[in-house]
Amino acid sequence: MLLTTLYIVGITAEAMTGALSAGKRNMDWFGVMLVASATAIGGGTVRDILLGHYPIGWVKKPEFLVITCIAGVITTVIARWIIKLKGVFIRLDALGLIVFSIIGTKVALSMGHHVIICVVAAIVTGVFGGLLRDLICRQTPLVLHQELYASVALTASTLYLTLLWLNIPELPATISTLITGYLLRMAAVRFNWRLPRFQLESESSVH
Amino acid sequence: MLLTTLYIVGITAEAMTGALSAGKRNMDWFGVMLVASATAIGGGTVRDILLGHYPIGWVKKPEFLVITCIAGVITTVIARWIIKLKGVFIRLDALGLIVFSIIGTKVALSMGHHVIICVVAAIVTGVFGGLLRDLICRQTPLVLHQELYASVALTASTLYLTLLWLNIPELPATISTLITGYLLRMAAVRFNWRLPRFQLESESSVH
Amino acid sequence: MLLTTLYIVGITAEAMTGALSAGKRNMDWFGVMLVASATAIGGGTVRDILLGHYPIGWVKKPEFLVITCIAGVITTVIARWIIKLKGVFIRLDALGLIVFSIIGTKVALSMGHHVIICVVAAIVTGVFGGLLRDLICRQTPLVLHQELYASVALTASTLYLTLLWLNIPELPATISTLITGYLLRMAAVRFNWRLPRFQLESESSVH
Repeated sequence: MLLTTLYIVGITAEAMTGALSAGKRNMDWFGVMLVASATAIGGGTVRDILLGHYPIGWVKKPEFLVITCIAGVITTVIARWIIKLKGVFIRLDALGLIVFSIIGTKVALSMGHHVIICVVAAIVTGVFGGLLRDLICRQTPLVLHQELYASVALTASTLYLTLLWLNIPELPATISTLITGYLLRMAAVRFNWRLPRFQLESESSVH
Repeated sequence: MLLTTLYIVGITAEAMTGALSAGKRNMDWFGVMLVASATAIGGGTVRDILLGHYPIGWVKKPEFLVITCIAGVITTVIARWIIKLKGVFIRLDALGLIVFSIIGTKVALSMGHHVIICVVAAIVTGVFGGLLRDLICRQTPLVLHQELYASVALTASTLYLTLLWLNIPELPATISTLITGYLLRMAAVRFNWRLPRFQLESESSVH
Repeated sequence: MLLTTLYIVGITAEAMTGALSAGKRNMDWFGVMLVASATAIGGGTVRDILLGHYPIGWVKKPEFLVITCIAGVITTVIARWIIKLKGVFIRLDALGLIVFSIIGTKVALSMGHHVIICVVAAIVTGVFGGLLRDLICRQTPLVLHQELYASVALTASTLYLTLLWLNIPELPATISTLITGYLLRMAAVRFNWRLPRFQLESESSVH
């Protein structure tokens, strides 16, 4: 219930940021809805396909897809307002990331997968939406060289799994993970924490 | 039977336009076959994966894949001739779009999905082939800012579903949808109908 | 046993070449692990998704994913050394290609698919890892205009299927395919064998 509410808030916020990327590429309404939906529910879709977890979330509940399409089109009208609310969206995005990570972990867990796969499922759910957005909009994927993003998903998933393993009931485990993960992500944004980069001259290649 | 014949015409035409894109990227024969096949049967493949509809069409009937590969290679020989027949290909592409939309709708319907998912299946079948082609060839996806394409798939699918819901038998429903959808697409091309675009300055971002 | 050992050697080598591509794009450690894994096990993943062969290889055996992630991160430390060992990597890549092709063929065969689909499974397993790497790193896919790559996978798969069809036991069939395929690939690299290219002026289009 808590997770579902936060999930809807999360996909709405993600859809809106996706729609802004589509706008920068001068796309039409269909493109806006496609990029908005890919950003918001693309991560969960890739996760479900990788795990063979059918039916995929939005195929079972098409209302999630309707929400992201509507959020995308509304964005074309209120884009200026959204851009001014940048701070709000960074917070919603952080919240969405943790919600996506917890849901991803739960799906893999419910299928009886290895703990490593549960963490991978969290990362895929949290990160691949933005990756798809950047592939469609032909931007170098942000998640691959920005502040901690996948690492936050990994940490949230690990924390959640540890709490469950310690027999903590689901609700407090979820709330603790949400708060910790959210604070970690906001700290990463504020202090510009990044993973080490790997820089290589463009000429060096084994191909 | 009618649909299968038109489907084969459709994938052949789509494969040929895909091969032309590969030629502009200076690809070798394998690349030509890959792009030709992705363009022609990529939409149906993505639809089947999203719906968990296994085995995928061309895995069950590999002859469809053979047709698209051969059509791709033939294109390398008769490219000049194809380019001159631009008008014919626009018509075949329009026909293919409606055939793909009807088939997509039928597949989702046969799996018992919500009507929204049937329409989405039609759009995915009709549109994602071209999207894959443009991703592989690194072009900004045409379907995201050209004349009505996804909208035609949506309209065709909705019309088809409505006719079935009105208890019209399948053959007349299919033919009516084919004619209406084809005319709509050709009108969109001729009169350059487009969806409203969403334009945003490149600097504005919440990321 | 032989195949599993060679498979681990193959994915390690592929992960390292993938990590080098990530380094040229200045990605962080997560990006390096993503590109390394996509390069090494992306082909098998796409094959399993296309065939509906669940659970996917690395979901069942997460240690393969752990290996590619570790190989990726190690590459960031020993990159200079790897680049100097270019010759070794070309050999390992050739070996990996044949191993991937044989495994792809075996998976499709075990599912009872048509011989054409077995060959396609070999090509997808051998080629799509590099294709995913180049899509994520926004390079024009190498496999689409370099020395024979898909053709070697096709030849290896066809040879392997023919040997099995001639009732040759699996081990000698595997070893013969490995040796023949490896030599073919190395010859293609040395003598710069390529498939004919399809060149088209950029202006010519039916779209």
